[in-house]
Amino acid sequence: MFKIFEDGLRPVYWQNDQLHLIDQRKLPNEETVIILEKAPDVAVAIKNMVVRGAPAIGITAAYGVVLAARAAYAASPDHWQTVIETEMQQLAEARPTAVNLAWALERMKACFSKITGNPVSILLEEAKRIHQEDIDANHRMGDLGAALLPSNCRVLTHCNAGALATGGYGTALGVIRSAYAAGKINQVYADETRPWLQGARLTAYELLQDNIPVTLLADSAAAALMQQKRVDWIIVGSDRITANGDVANKIGTYNLAVLARQHGIKLMVVAPISTVDMNLADGSQIVIEERATDEVLTIGGDRIAPSGAKAWNPSFDVTPASFVDVIVTEKGVVEKPTREGLAELLSL
Amino acid sequence: MFKIFEDGLRPVYWQNDQLHLIDQRKLPNEETVIILEKAPDVAVAIKNMVVRGAPAIGITAAYGVVLAARAAYAASPDHWQTVIETEMQQLAEARPTAVNLAWALERMKACFSKITGNPVSILLEEAKRIHQEDIDANHRMGDLGAALLPSNCRVLTHCNAGALATGGYGTALGVIRSAYAAGKINQVYADETRPWLQGARLTAYELLQDNIPVTLLADSAAAALMQQKRVDWIIVGSDRITANGDVANKIGTYNLAVLARQHGIKLMVVAPISTVDMNLADGSQIVIEERATDEVLTIGGDRIAPSGAKAWNPSFDVTPASFVDVIVTEKGVVEKPTREGLAELLSL
Repeated sequence: MFKIFEDGLRPVYWQNDQLHLIDQRKLPNEETVIILEKAPDVAVAIKNMVVRGAPAIGITAAYGVVLAARAAYAASPDHWQTVIETEMQQLAEARPTAVNLAWALERMKACFSKITGNPVSILLEEAKRIHQEDIDANHRMGDLGAALLPSNCRVLTHCNAGALATGGYGTALGVIRSAYAAGKINQVYADETRPWLQGARLTAYELLQDNIPVTLLADSAAAALMQQKRVDWIIVGSDRITANGDVANKIGTYNLAVLARQHGIKLMVVAPISTVDMNLADGSQIVIEERATDEVLTIGGDRIAPSGAKAWNPSFDVTPASFVDVIVTEKGVVEKPTREGLAELLSL
Repeated sequence: MFKIFEDGLRPVYWQNDQLHLIDQRKLPNEETVIILEKAPDVAVAIKNMVVRGAPAIGITAAYGVVLAARAAYAASPDHWQTVIETEMQQLAEARPTAVNLAWALERMKACFSKITGNPVSILLEEAKRIHQEDIDANHRMGDLGAALLPSNCRVLTHCNAGALATGGYGTALGVIRSAYAAGKINQVYADETRPWLQGARLTAYELLQDNIPVTLLADSAAAALMQQKRVDWIIVGSDRITANGDVANKIGTYNLAVLARQHGIKLMVVAPISTVDMNLADGSQIVIEERATDEVLTIGGDRIAPSGAKAWNPSFDVTPASFVDVIVTEKGVVEKPTREGLAELLSL
């Protein structure tokens, strides 16, 4: 069993000089933790989705740098900043789509020049700072996003953009938590989110831990839900937002965006400012990870499709900015996002 | 193992005075057949989805009437037409959304007045006629639908509207079979179709049996597929078409219809004329079956969601006629369906 903090779940935490990761592949049926001491194992854990969710991946990689530095310094106290490069690269390449991973590694690397002697304590302090800042940002986004919702609101979320996807509290689920606490939410729907079932396994799990009732649905039933006027807002997270406001997020997000627009339903994207990648002009430049076809062809190790069947398994899709009603960050909100709106926010 | 006919799979067939149903709950991992001799067992098999697909349900119910008549005649040779009513009602109530079930029962009942003595042979003849007519209709629809497709066509289908959903050959998959045989199809995509996974389990199974390559995808990935311009036509079946051309079909069909319209992709609905229900003015009058929430909360008997999670599990949705580019029946096609267009077709 993993540790539950005063403010709820944290998918990643540092304890006894070791990195602890909730094994999200096993939830909700098994509540287990994986303990890591080497950076290459952290890269593998990210790749295999022991931990997932753009902000959580970034934080995990930051702690991974601490482990890498510890090993590099032990091996070569004078040249650890060179020795560490291989493992930094392994962390960077663990998953391609979320920008937060590269962002966190850059931020850790920026400390290197200040370090003399053993780098571990300084880097651990920085990783913990990144982690705490994320949690604080989520609470701030929760307040900002909740303020945008009407009373008696019915919301639908996709995938898991919750405590388990972040340092804690969550982005999209942070808004839902804050709005629920404020008495503004009547009903929370969650897409089950195939193929990995983050909605059924993770979002339902953490909302029920907080005593927030949740109703799951097959992803493709969202259209009927909207047609029947049973939802007011779609609230999702993001793995990368480009300079013009295009949003990469879990496969199926673009599907919801098209449906929402057709039915006059609002779409809110909630993500820390570190998700905004001003280096990419638009969504066409985002590298979309395609994962193993077995994620579609099997469930829980059991084959569901006949042998010989192929599958297409993109892990993310890109929602054009024109479909997004509002982006919520800890620095503020941008309605009808544009390059100018995002640039202004970043300059604050 | 079940019988494979010269022209392929048939989900239902009569052999040795018994009704044989391929157990579609077990495919593709187990190729088993269930043998039934009593009509109430047929009703249960329909309810539990041993057999599914609107035309296949109708055909199965027709054979069910033969079993009911055999029992009723054995119990009361003079009053079998009264005695049979209870079991006829059980068959009628097995599932609510597909009109073909009621249609087949009505057609069987229309024979009753002509019968003197033992009704079994006359009713069996009628059930076999309904079955053969369905297969013939599917081949005709296959030709008509294929003619509408351009060459080098990339198609996406949802659920299973194939041999397994009909008497044989299939409706939507009949069109895909005919078009593939004519060399017009470059690529077949199939939605896995949660929660019951008809696409992954059944559509992939029967297409691969015919050596037609198929690529599966998570239902919500269809939007990204269309955004990337990788599909030209959506081809689906239907469980009920109302007088104005609204189409009830497997949950997720309306989702595809909205996406298709957004991306300039065509939507073809393929269904025998018996699917058209002129008694219902529009889709708002269709009874949509909601099935057990365990279909969403568990997979293969294994729980995927935490206990306490609720689910919404409508089995069908309604696509407004305005989203349908063409309805293909064995009597001909109706483009941009309207009440007038459908009435004209029915009068042929």
